[in-house]
Amino acid sequence: MAAATPALSVAELIERHQDTLDRALAAIRSRDYWSPYPEFPKAYGESGAADGKAAFEALLGGVFALDGHPTDGELVGGETSPYGIELGISYPHATPDALIGALQAARPAWAAAGPAARAAVCLEILDRINKRSHEFGHAVMHTTGQAYGMAFQAGGPHAQDRGLEAVVYAFAEQTRLPERADWTKPQGKRDPLTMVKEFTVVPRGLALLIGCNTFPTWNGYPGLFASLATGNPVLVKPHPRATLPLALTVRVAREVLAEAGFDPNTVCLAAEHEGSTVAQVLAVRPEVKVIDYTGSTSFGDWLEANAKQAQVYTEKAGVNTAVVESTDNYRGMLANLAFALSLYSGQMCTTPQNILIPRTGIDTDEGSKSYDEVVTDLAAAIDGLLGDDARAAAILGAVVNPGVLQRTVQAAGGEFGELALTPRVVASQEFPGAAIRTPALVKVDSDKPDDRATFLSECFGPVSFAVAVESAEAAVELLRRTTAEQGAMTATGWTVDATVEAALVEAALDSGVSLSLNLTGGVYPNQTAAFSDLHGTGANPAANSAYCDGAFVANRFRTVEIRRHS
Amino acid sequence: MAAATPALSVAELIERHQDTLDRALAAIRSRDYWSPYPEFPKAYGESGAADGKAAFEALLGGVFALDGHPTDGELVGGETSPYGIELGISYPHATPDALIGALQAARPAWAAAGPAARAAVCLEILDRINKRSHEFGHAVMHTTGQAYGMAFQAGGPHAQDRGLEAVVYAFAEQTRLPERADWTKPQGKRDPLTMVKEFTVVPRGLALLIGCNTFPTWNGYPGLFASLATGNPVLVKPHPRATLPLALTVRVAREVLAEAGFDPNTVCLAAEHEGSTVAQVLAVRPEVKVIDYTGSTSFGDWLEANAKQAQVYTEKAGVNTAVVESTDNYRGMLANLAFALSLYSGQMCTTPQNILIPRTGIDTDEGSKSYDEVVTDLAAAIDGLLGDDARAAAILGAVVNPGVLQRTVQAAGGEFGELALTPRVVASQEFPGAAIRTPALVKVDSDKPDDRATFLSECFGPVSFAVAVESAEAAVELLRRTTAEQGAMTATGWTVDATVEAALVEAALDSGVSLSLNLTGGVYPNQTAAFSDLHGTGANPAANSAYCDGAFVANRFRTVEIRRHS
Repeated sequence: MAAATPALSVAELIERHQDTLDRALAAIRSRDYWSPYPEFPKAYGESGAADGKAAFEALLGGVFALDGHPTDGELVGGETSPYGIELGISYPHATPDALIGALQAARPAWAAAGPAARAAVCLEILDRINKRSHEFGHAVMHTTGQAYGMAFQAGGPHAQDRGLEAVVYAFAEQTRLPERADWTKPQGKRDPLTMVKEFTVVPRGLALLIGCNTFPTWNGYPGLFASLATGNPVLVKPHPRATLPLALTVRVAREVLAEAGFDPNTVCLAAEHEGSTVAQVLAVRPEVKVIDYTGSTSFGDWLEANAKQAQVYTEKAGVNTAVVESTDNYRGMLANLAFALSLYSGQMCTTPQNILIPRTGIDTDEGSKSYDEVVTDLAAAIDGLLGDDARAAAILGAVVNPGVLQRTVQAAGGEFGELALTPRVVASQEFPGAAIRTPALVKVDSDKPDDRATFLSECFGPVSFAVAVESAEAAVELLRRTTAEQGAMTATGWTVDATVEAALVEAALDSGVSLSLNLTGGVYPNQTAAFSDLHGTGANPAANSAYCDGAFVANRFRTVEIRRHS
Repeated sequence: MAAATPALSVAELIERHQDTLDRALAAIRSRDYWSPYPEFPKAYGESGAADGKAAFEALLGGVFALDGHPTDGELVGGETSPYGIELGISYPHATPDALIGALQAARPAWAAAGPAARAAVCLEILDRINKRSHEFGHAVMHTTGQAYGMAFQAGGPHAQDRGLEAVVYAFAEQTRLPERADWTKPQGKRDPLTMVKEFTVVPRGLALLIGCNTFPTWNGYPGLFASLATGNPVLVKPHPRATLPLALTVRVAREVLAEAGFDPNTVCLAAEHEGSTVAQVLAVRPEVKVIDYTGSTSFGDWLEANAKQAQVYTEKAGVNTAVVESTDNYRGMLANLAFALSLYSGQMCTTPQNILIPRTGIDTDEGSKSYDEVVTDLAAAIDGLLGDDARAAAILGAVVNPGVLQRTVQAAGGEFGELALTPRVVASQEFPGAAIRTPALVKVDSDKPDDRATFLSECFGPVSFAVAVESAEAAVELLRRTTAEQGAMTATGWTVDATVEAALVEAALDSGVSLSLNLTGGVYPNQTAAFSDLHGTGANPAANSAYCDGAFVANRFRTVEIRRHS
């Protein structure tokens, strides 16, 4: 049988996406705002929202088809939406050997395709995912608990941005050396020495993506596309509670790969029931040379210590600090912080957890405010923001899993300390089974050892601590120490004092965390924009890498040189 | 006391070296031949050679001064030249705590200096080292055993090239993000969101360079300058038998640092007696975040497994393979291979060890040659090259240490197999105590298990194996397997058959080793040129990194972002 002509010509794909690639290359240099993927839901056509919802609903209760994918015949699944509905979707299961074998078979052709073809295939995958952003929005919503608006944006175009960013970094890195170079070395009066040198990108091997429950696409796409663009077939191992968004991603990737004449098994899915330990098995397979992981510190540390055959990129837990020292826009500061603490019920790795406030109070454009006043006003700002149930639900989303829900119960019961703001249950008309809770704001004192033990560990979810500190200097020191010891994905500060600002900057640089200063408008501490902001630094215990920089892509491949006389 | 005005203005240094930096940036993109450091001894002035020798001789028997360097008062040393003379140089010793403390004190100012100032300081250091290349040549000669011509070139300008290459890669990597970027995100009819974002390079911490016996500068400068240029103070731990070249380097670095207003303890020396285990102590210090190492596989593996707090870059042992399948220039091939095996007595990590030759013979421009004829002709070529003692000494240099000398004795006694070429003792007029040996060429058969056990382990030094193989295909497979299992820094092939050439290329790409094809002139398999050739690939067990690419520098620092509203 003759090989079928690919439906998609790689040359055409390269041409189709050249402009996007060029613009993305310019964007990562300028760091100005840019995105090819509209973040407004209405940009996706008049029927886009309805079509996306219908596409999502058509998946419910069915068997998720992956043509030509390895399988042992078993079906796995069991996802339950944090909004209270069973998804009822079954995914094909395969043994580690079958998955690794299929990826290995796909490896040589993908490795040989070269950087330009791989970038074009990745951009086509992202483009098709982008067109289905509403469908992905529903998939993300009903696996993570994000409210639809956020699930659509963060799980759709913003995740695609981060994927594209990884592709363009990978492309840039792989093309720093010319494919071919002439070398002429003068030899005085003798003829020069001349050589022709060819530089070929050699991918590492297989890549494993271990997805997380809260941001399966946003946290998954950087590693997935960085590995794929550098020529490593990718095994996608989703979190068992958030399989669908990555399963859809795998399906689109496989469609594009097949149409472009590559083996669809260049991207495979390792779907598992909850409680499966297959990630540990896959992570130490000798064929697996790159691992991307987002999740708990304990498993991240395990991967770093045990998956020695692989390059391991981890994002783990941390404790994010905000320092409130002074402001010339008290209302703006409160509004910004209230939204930051409420968004997705604080279930972002970037949400501030500890709000450090000098015990002696702060200066504001509304006069001096005592610690208690600041805390009361912040509680009121959150209350006001979330006063209306429908609006509250649209900001909070739902609590992602029983563990987080349990913490809200503990907080509500005063287990973490005195409550400045008691969490309340928000009812959803549309999803009566949704677990929606407003945040708890707990008053603690940095001088009390019991309090310190509480607020210095990660308390993931809708619980924040208003931490009384001795002074601005003490706040800066606590930010530094918390970041250096516990890790942090973000740091935030409000101050109008140049000395305090300089100290905050110095502490951020010293402890290795990125810092947002005096946010009072529509940019929040927990949000980063691809092509401009780095997500994480890799310089503190919360993560060993960042989205996205040269270090995130440079070691996913190596370069082999072949040289000859001219 | 007021701080003294630095003797060197950093702004002036930046201007002074801007052109070299720009040219180096262009060179690493074009990969054409380029070097700012002349490799001809006469380029260093009429009295350059004599002055360098005198400067070296003035060091002998003395205490090596390092002004302001930490010390516990003890002096260490004991270097013996492979040419049979005692160097008698004593170096100041310091405890790990004192060294780490001094480097830590120097850290903040060097971290804050920024990429441009650091690059300029590094270029000034390299420039001053370059001017003293003859002195360094003698220091390298009398610690490594390299013949003077090679010690001068490889230990001088070529090492400086590799150092500059690391500096320029580090500079490029640190300046991929702008220092400051404006970000403007349209908001439809509302005012755009605007932010100012500052990106600051944050060095990892302290760096440790663990030097080797054979190429203290050539293998040491890439890591030393990559770490220094990315803002990490460097502790230089030389091999106890090759301290002088790195001690001189440290002294020049400290002079430039001090003159430019930095703490000279930004670069310190951990000199030790032979047998010291201080490297193990230093390597796991929490302050040490970057380690560069060249040496044995066992200690390299130990570092990778135990120095978990650090980024570890290693070059370890390997078994380099050459395949002789056919040639249209038999004499050129034999001459090239003879020189490659003889240069520095095969004591290069890049020297071919196993010469695979089909048992059925090869086709050449001089007709078919049987395996035995090829081996005999190669032995004759080596014999001819080294027939004159003075010329032999100038190529072979001296045997670096008693372990290697012992292997030449074993080889001469036939322990490794039948000798096609018996090593002989070369007498040196100038250095009667020098241990100079011509290479042994041992005939082995790839079908014999005992032979395989012998030639498949690294046999560092002047011992090569002429390995009879079944066919060209078997040779390619053996190259692939040896590289994948034992690691290799180089691979070499001679063939005029396009199919065999393609198979060699495929095997090199697959096993991750760079390949030189059909070398018959003045370029040898064991030589790589900075700015053009990669040294190592990081894709096989012989090394986890390469000189020099993005991956070698990208993770020596991180980036912290500070953002504010405009």
